[in-house]
Amino acid sequence: MTLEASKPTVRPSAGARYFALIADKLERTEEVFRRSLASDVPFIEDAGAYIFEGGGKRMRPALVLLSAELLGRDGDEEVTYAAVVEVIHSASLVHDDIIDHAELRRSKPTVNQVWGNSKTVLLGDWLYTTAMGMALSHGNLEVVKRLCDATLRMTEGELLALDRLGAIDLTSDEYFEIIERKTARLFAAAASVPALMTPARLDAAAVLADYGKALGICFQLVDDLLDFTAREGELGKPVLSDLREGKLTLPLLLALPRLDAARRQAIAKVLEDGAFSRVDSAEVLDIVSSEGTLEETRELAERYAVEARRQLAFLPPGEAREALELAPDFVLNRRQ
Amino acid sequence: MTLEASKPTVRPSAGARYFALIADKLERTEEVFRRSLASDVPFIEDAGAYIFEGGGKRMRPALVLLSAELLGRDGDEEVTYAAVVEVIHSASLVHDDIIDHAELRRSKPTVNQVWGNSKTVLLGDWLYTTAMGMALSHGNLEVVKRLCDATLRMTEGELLALDRLGAIDLTSDEYFEIIERKTARLFAAAASVPALMTPARLDAAAVLADYGKALGICFQLVDDLLDFTAREGELGKPVLSDLREGKLTLPLLLALPRLDAARRQAIAKVLEDGAFSRVDSAEVLDIVSSEGTLEETRELAERYAVEARRQLAFLPPGEAREALELAPDFVLNRRQ
Repeated sequence: MTLEASKPTVRPSAGARYFALIADKLERTEEVFRRSLASDVPFIEDAGAYIFEGGGKRMRPALVLLSAELLGRDGDEEVTYAAVVEVIHSASLVHDDIIDHAELRRSKPTVNQVWGNSKTVLLGDWLYTTAMGMALSHGNLEVVKRLCDATLRMTEGELLALDRLGAIDLTSDEYFEIIERKTARLFAAAASVPALMTPARLDAAAVLADYGKALGICFQLVDDLLDFTAREGELGKPVLSDLREGKLTLPLLLALPRLDAARRQAIAKVLEDGAFSRVDSAEVLDIVSSEGTLEETRELAERYAVEARRQLAFLPPGEAREALELAPDFVLNRRQ
Repeated sequence: MTLEASKPTVRPSAGARYFALIADKLERTEEVFRRSLASDVPFIEDAGAYIFEGGGKRMRPALVLLSAELLGRDGDEEVTYAAVVEVIHSASLVHDDIIDHAELRRSKPTVNQVWGNSKTVLLGDWLYTTAMGMALSHGNLEVVKRLCDATLRMTEGELLALDRLGAIDLTSDEYFEIIERKTARLFAAAASVPALMTPARLDAAAVLADYGKALGICFQLVDDLLDFTAREGELGKPVLSDLREGKLTLPLLLALPRLDAARRQAIAKVLEDGAFSRVDSAEVLDIVSSEGTLEETRELAERYAVEARRQLAFLPPGEAREALELAPDFVLNRRQ
């Protein structure tokens, strides 16, 4: 079974339909995001424009906006929070790129590559604090608390990952703990924030958080898959970057207990070297391919997609719910 | 005139009297600070305890508590905010030490020296976000906004400084812009937060902010002086660290326009090398000493002390105001 053959749930142009309903508000979010990166400090101005122009899938802002639509909100507040989650996400990316010594993101040199680590550390701090300042502007404490908590868990997830970097004995429990914190918590916050804005719909907050969490885990599993299966041109960075950085992800985690000593040793060498110096990358690709763990990871991602959609049954039907139903397809279908 | 002779305003044991009134609450702040650094992530737990045990002057928490005392507050809220400003300050220190490649702080290896830069970047993020989460716990938006704004300005101050690192043409306007943002804004926020907690005393917020700002500038000027005049054992790090890191501070800034080409060239070489490899540190000390710019900087610090005290005339007299009057003496008198 090839990886392509294992995509039964993907419908055509899920992305387009997912984003269509909120196209207007996404555009307003872009404007708020761009303006939030303005500063009288020249470096912030330059690096802010660079980040903004670098683009991104805007998955998290779209979640905020669709949840808001679902709950009948139509104002500026959700646009602000949509921009806030993208600023938080951007802050985490610039700091992660320092930590990973990453040179490329979305086919462009990383911020640390262009301006150096010192300024990039401070830029990340500035972005995190700017996000909090923006979130405070509507005076909704519950929302700010939720975003603050998600940011904290995200940082903890990164730290847990760093603590186990290069460890060949990482367990899948640890792996899921890490991806839940580093990715799924912010997705959960993004999806549930509009319910916190709406006193009459606080009941929806837990359901939307569960939806966001499952979608976030699905997203990260696909991310980890793409590191094995994507082409460099699509990915915007070298393939097998994770392993090179010492990160064991699910396709290899699932394969490891089934490997003979020699193949296990090959993985250990790559982790140890942080490079494909003694082991060819083709050998690693052969391992996950012959053990079938790419398909297993993909099937797991699809189970989380189903889990996410299952939550939506509790919510009012309509266009917004349909778009949220499409989001997992968009995630499963993406190539970068 | 020696530097010692130029301390006319310093009264004996200003420190003890400054802190006595709030000894109880400072102890409670220590407990809140210590507990705020707890986590289920082992590294955060370890590094948090290390930071807590590293100590510090707790200048900023003391300011919060004395202002609260002055305005007749007696509760848990000001203790929380006192801990919050110390957490924000700690976050900035761990990131600054990465940027400055600092190896020692308060005579102990820096966090980045013990755990490496990657974990220290994330620890700083965690501390900033934890501080915001703590600040949100009392539901006072104006206070959180003020603390958030001060954090933003602090980061901008660091970035402006970094942008002009190693520049021999730094102007004193730029120098004051940098120290106002990187140091004085958080002092101003610390002093004014208790007024924001007290609806009837919002009028005091601006006065207390001006007091804190002047005290903060005084504090930074003394800090910059100590880099020239303190002994390494007292400072807890090598003397002339600033210059080694490419930072021109006021004593040299004031001297530069008066120097002949050879001596100016000596300063340029140290900035260029980031070390005393071609120039002896004694030569730099001789420059600031013979040009009298240590005394001039000290006199300026004293003028800011007077300016700080002048603000207090607008506030109710009593023990708390007397303690706040002593704070500038404590700052001027400190040796580390």
